[in-house]
Amino acid sequence: MKKIKIALLGLGTVGSGVREILLEKQEHLSEKIYQKNGQKISIEIAKILIRHPEKYQDVDPSLLTTNYHEILDDDSIKIVIEAMGGEHPATEYMLSAMEKNKHVVSANKLAIAKSNGSLEKAANNNHAVFLYEAAVAGTVPILRAINDSLVANEITKVSGIINGTTNYILSKMTNEQSSYKDALLNAQELGFAEADPASDVNGDDAKYKIAILSRLAFGQWPDLDSIDCQGISAVTPKQIHDAKAKGKVIKFLAQSEKVNGNIIASVSLQEIDRQHPLAHVEGAMNAVYLHCDNAGELLFQGAGAGSRPTASAVVSDVFNIVERL
Amino acid sequence: MKKIKIALLGLGTVGSGVREILLEKQEHLSEKIYQKNGQKISIEIAKILIRHPEKYQDVDPSLLTTNYHEILDDDSIKIVIEAMGGEHPATEYMLSAMEKNKHVVSANKLAIAKSNGSLEKAANNNHAVFLYEAAVAGTVPILRAINDSLVANEITKVSGIINGTTNYILSKMTNEQSSYKDALLNAQELGFAEADPASDVNGDDAKYKIAILSRLAFGQWPDLDSIDCQGISAVTPKQIHDAKAKGKVIKFLAQSEKVNGNIIASVSLQEIDRQHPLAHVEGAMNAVYLHCDNAGELLFQGAGAGSRPTASAVVSDVFNIVERL
Repeated sequence: MKKIKIALLGLGTVGSGVREILLEKQEHLSEKIYQKNGQKISIEIAKILIRHPEKYQDVDPSLLTTNYHEILDDDSIKIVIEAMGGEHPATEYMLSAMEKNKHVVSANKLAIAKSNGSLEKAANNNHAVFLYEAAVAGTVPILRAINDSLVANEITKVSGIINGTTNYILSKMTNEQSSYKDALLNAQELGFAEADPASDVNGDDAKYKIAILSRLAFGQWPDLDSIDCQGISAVTPKQIHDAKAKGKVIKFLAQSEKVNGNIIASVSLQEIDRQHPLAHVEGAMNAVYLHCDNAGELLFQGAGAGSRPTASAVVSDVFNIVERL
Repeated sequence: MKKIKIALLGLGTVGSGVREILLEKQEHLSEKIYQKNGQKISIEIAKILIRHPEKYQDVDPSLLTTNYHEILDDDSIKIVIEAMGGEHPATEYMLSAMEKNKHVVSANKLAIAKSNGSLEKAANNNHAVFLYEAAVAGTVPILRAINDSLVANEITKVSGIINGTTNYILSKMTNEQSSYKDALLNAQELGFAEADPASDVNGDDAKYKIAILSRLAFGQWPDLDSIDCQGISAVTPKQIHDAKAKGKVIKFLAQSEKVNGNIIASVSLQEIDRQHPLAHVEGAMNAVYLHCDNAGELLFQGAGAGSRPTASAVVSDVFNIVERL
């Protein structure tokens, strides 16, 4: 059995989910790899970068490190999973891993969108694979669908509900006549919104994700500042009620299309028809709707966040790399 | 520029769509391959097997053949696309192509489901890749999602609307109070149902597809005869109306789960809640709903039939093989 060593940066919500899945599904994954390419391979976490080792009593201490160089300088580590979040030092850590020819998997929409293509370039220059399925719509395999399954298409438009917090709030306001404030409080109590929900409710989170979707669908990075980005906090029960009376529903949509060679993207409240496939995406779910020249219109829906769903996407990226090694 | 030669068996709805896409997207596909693995490759149709050459005046006659051996014995042809439909001789043609170490792409749910694993075994024994994304739910990349994107999951249940004809009929009956007979006639006029709709309305078509989904989701082929398969022709406007009055909707669902090591699969009319994600799949659309241990619940929706949508899935399989060559 050949071992592929990987390192995990961060052991928060996503990182701990990845660790759990890799431990629980070790045999299952080895079997799947064997079925695919006839090789006996196991995936092993060799190092985990964390800040406070004392917080992780249940983890073998020899795996934990607070020094990134222990990972970077270990040539036996082939894949780095960045699950730290935030722009810095995550971006620098990913770049330096690629420069050492390590493959990188990330769930970090912020760092990827803000890198404006530089992470991608570094990967190409160093023959490293860089995958980030979990960065958009969590567990929903939308990036792979665009990259692989829809390769025979021009994608003409992307729209989606790609922020679970705001969709939860709007669903609650629509279905239970909650006020915005009560719905947000409820989302926080249930863990669907963070204590500081700013980046969700002001649209920044969705902006990063629609930037990544635009890059994959249209082949170029949009300027983040050019994305028309509105928040949801001004939405009122009356607005929602009035939409309902017209047979419509208010959703917080991220949209992008290429018009005369330019990407026109936005994140905003939209009144959509109740027959629209995105109208029925409820609660913290995410969904992406694609218009394609040959395949027509497709909808992909699933959990946009959460430890295990997000980690499921990260592990599938790791698997994808291991398959190719 | 390296050329990968492929052969097309059949030039009907699917085959002609594949030919059109490969011609129209030749540069686009070469560019995508180059982006992925740095190789300059073009995909070229070298031979097309048809029965009546005189029917295809717009095709270069040197490409057409009525003799399968011209394809089988040509070692420069690496991939065979089976787009003939029917069990025989499609099955034998695929098997003999694999025995010649050719990779095979098929859209033929009937032949695949009835082969009970023998096509798969032949592919494995001959180191041939065998892909058939288009065989289930047309353009919807559900097979790749199960095989690749959800590799870190046990799939616990699969359900879907995987026959467009019957979903069109039921949607028409539900939304426009049509009778079964009128809805079927309308579907035939619009090309959503064939002149002989037997295999759609008696559930056979969905049965083959749920058998394939079961194999991929649960790792084993169900016995086709063990699949409880009911038709839709007995459905009445009253049944649909009564469901509506209860806030429910009647859908023709294919379902499968593994219970105590056995696959329990069925194809039948089901009353589902209007909140269920499959309740809003309208007209000729297809959708598949998966329950997974880590990723949770996912919905994939898109065109289940039609020349270009189906061909889009076939071409993505061809691309997938070319990438690996």
